[in-house]
Amino acid sequence: MTATVHPLNRDTPPSLNPIMSLVAQDMNAVNSIILDRMQSEIPLIPELAGHLIAGGGKRMRPMLTLASAKLLDYPGTRHHKLAAAVEFIHTATLLHDDVVDGSDMRRGKTAANLIFGNPATVLVGDFLFSRSFELMVEDGSLKVLRILSNASAVIAEGEVDQLTAQRRIETDEERYLSIIGAKTAALFAAACRISAVVAERDEATELALDSYGRNLGIAFQLIDDAIDYTSDSETMGKGVGDDFREGKVTLPIILSYARGNAEERKFWEDAIAGHRSSDEDLAYAIRLMRENGAVDDTIERARLYGQRAIDAIAGFHAADAKAAMTETVAFAISRAY
Amino acid sequence: MTATVHPLNRDTPPSLNPIMSLVAQDMNAVNSIILDRMQSEIPLIPELAGHLIAGGGKRMRPMLTLASAKLLDYPGTRHHKLAAAVEFIHTATLLHDDVVDGSDMRRGKTAANLIFGNPATVLVGDFLFSRSFELMVEDGSLKVLRILSNASAVIAEGEVDQLTAQRRIETDEERYLSIIGAKTAALFAAACRISAVVAERDEATELALDSYGRNLGIAFQLIDDAIDYTSDSETMGKGVGDDFREGKVTLPIILSYARGNAEERKFWEDAIAGHRSSDEDLAYAIRLMRENGAVDDTIERARLYGQRAIDAIAGFHAADAKAAMTETVAFAISRAY
Repeated sequence: MTATVHPLNRDTPPSLNPIMSLVAQDMNAVNSIILDRMQSEIPLIPELAGHLIAGGGKRMRPMLTLASAKLLDYPGTRHHKLAAAVEFIHTATLLHDDVVDGSDMRRGKTAANLIFGNPATVLVGDFLFSRSFELMVEDGSLKVLRILSNASAVIAEGEVDQLTAQRRIETDEERYLSIIGAKTAALFAAACRISAVVAERDEATELALDSYGRNLGIAFQLIDDAIDYTSDSETMGKGVGDDFREGKVTLPIILSYARGNAEERKFWEDAIAGHRSSDEDLAYAIRLMRENGAVDDTIERARLYGQRAIDAIAGFHAADAKAAMTETVAFAISRAY
Repeated sequence: MTATVHPLNRDTPPSLNPIMSLVAQDMNAVNSIILDRMQSEIPLIPELAGHLIAGGGKRMRPMLTLASAKLLDYPGTRHHKLAAAVEFIHTATLLHDDVVDGSDMRRGKTAANLIFGNPATVLVGDFLFSRSFELMVEDGSLKVLRILSNASAVIAEGEVDQLTAQRRIETDEERYLSIIGAKTAALFAAACRISAVVAERDEATELALDSYGRNLGIAFQLIDDAIDYTSDSETMGKGVGDDFREGKVTLPIILSYARGNAEERKFWEDAIAGHRSSDEDLAYAIRLMRENGAVDDTIERARLYGQRAIDAIAGFHAADAKAAMTETVAFAISRAY
């Protein structure tokens, strides 16, 4: 790990503590808005939404909106409502993802679709998505509305693209990066960028924050992909090998397939086709990846995107915010160790 | 049928022809926008969206936006994009409804979920929903964005409310009217109202058009409910008795249950619980409804809402538009005969 990604000489591993302290007060306000605006006269709506929202999660995206505002020394509170809108968009996509993937677990709890059923899960997702636009309209910035409606369309496109790529071993690295750029990184980028809009800063500032968020988002996703082949279920809130068992084509698989000999390629083809999902198969997959370096190189690529995120905010001066946002990148990468 | 609902003395039954002729040219422009904006680099998106959109449907909601603009002598074209946005919201909710209901058929064709699967159907719905907001943002009216984001949240609430009421025989008329007011009538109301916004007319005009759309929407839904117990499958694009077999509590059932003796109530309870779905059960249900007047009175209520819709636009002067919008109400009601 380079000195830049680990900006501080110290013994403690990088964490989200700096960014959490940076935005703690703002986050209280955002949490109040989230709790207030997920209410409805239809009791099932706050019950189902609350199951996921109260279930925690790092509130990573609203945290980035708040930290970006700090980086720009924005003195106002308009971004609170918008950070809540970003979290609602994210929550809506998680609910729909759980239906799409037939998830069993989410954030260490039983997934909403298993408790409340697919119909309610789809519809409460729709409600939160609509509510997020209501929040944006209340704020009144057409530029923010443009950024977030575009991000939402791109996320949906990325999800459909991923669905099309599902169980297709021929998915290559470019295609995969385009999928996670849409499905994961677009909302990270938008979450950061909208703070430049409310702070009324120039286009270059918007683009710098967009770049920070986008590259951080890709780094996060690539590390998630790597962790699925390294960690144990305790540290993730989901089981190791989930991606493998579901036949998900992620970067470790793409690299392994590209690097494999005929016999190994056959194994990866079978795995992605759903014929290799035993514990022994998973152990063999992990061993192959250790030999061919696919997990290490996935982490290496994540580190590269992380470095780009850090460089994107190099020109800003708010020291605390910049340090916290830099350490957030280091934290994202460090999860692989 | 009163002279007001049948405004013309003639032998031909009321039809959508007048409103279709009124807006034909505008509708070509709207259809181009719909076809253009459902495109995506991900081929599955236009394929799935096209299956439903090309499958026809009356384009009732965008037609109402266009007719309302004619009623106000609005000379511009801004409403074309917004009419497309309204149709995208409607299409997104249909796709999600098909997943929620596990539909087999839609618009006389195999439902998208059966051809493309639930995951793609949910996600393409999300895409169209996001795209609708992009279209609104391009138009740039925050007032329109407020009206349509609110309508979207209300629709989702109505759908969840209906889900909660599913298979609950104790659902009463008030609750049911509140559900269809949210789930169906809110988008009819918004579709009409936004034309008053683009034409820059006063609040009273907005409210009049909102009321026309809302009451027409309720009338449409109540007639749909009645038809399920009267028509044959040819005229609907779906089978008669679908609501009954699915245990859907609609107004004909609510009235029948309220009016039934102990034995009949037991039958309705069993039916809604899912234990009465044979052809004989359906025939018995229809016979009971004929005796207790539930279908006739559902139609009677629809006629009342239709009359309110007509009265709501009584003060406007554009003769062609007013006649066409009046006949649209008459058409909605006449479907029951």
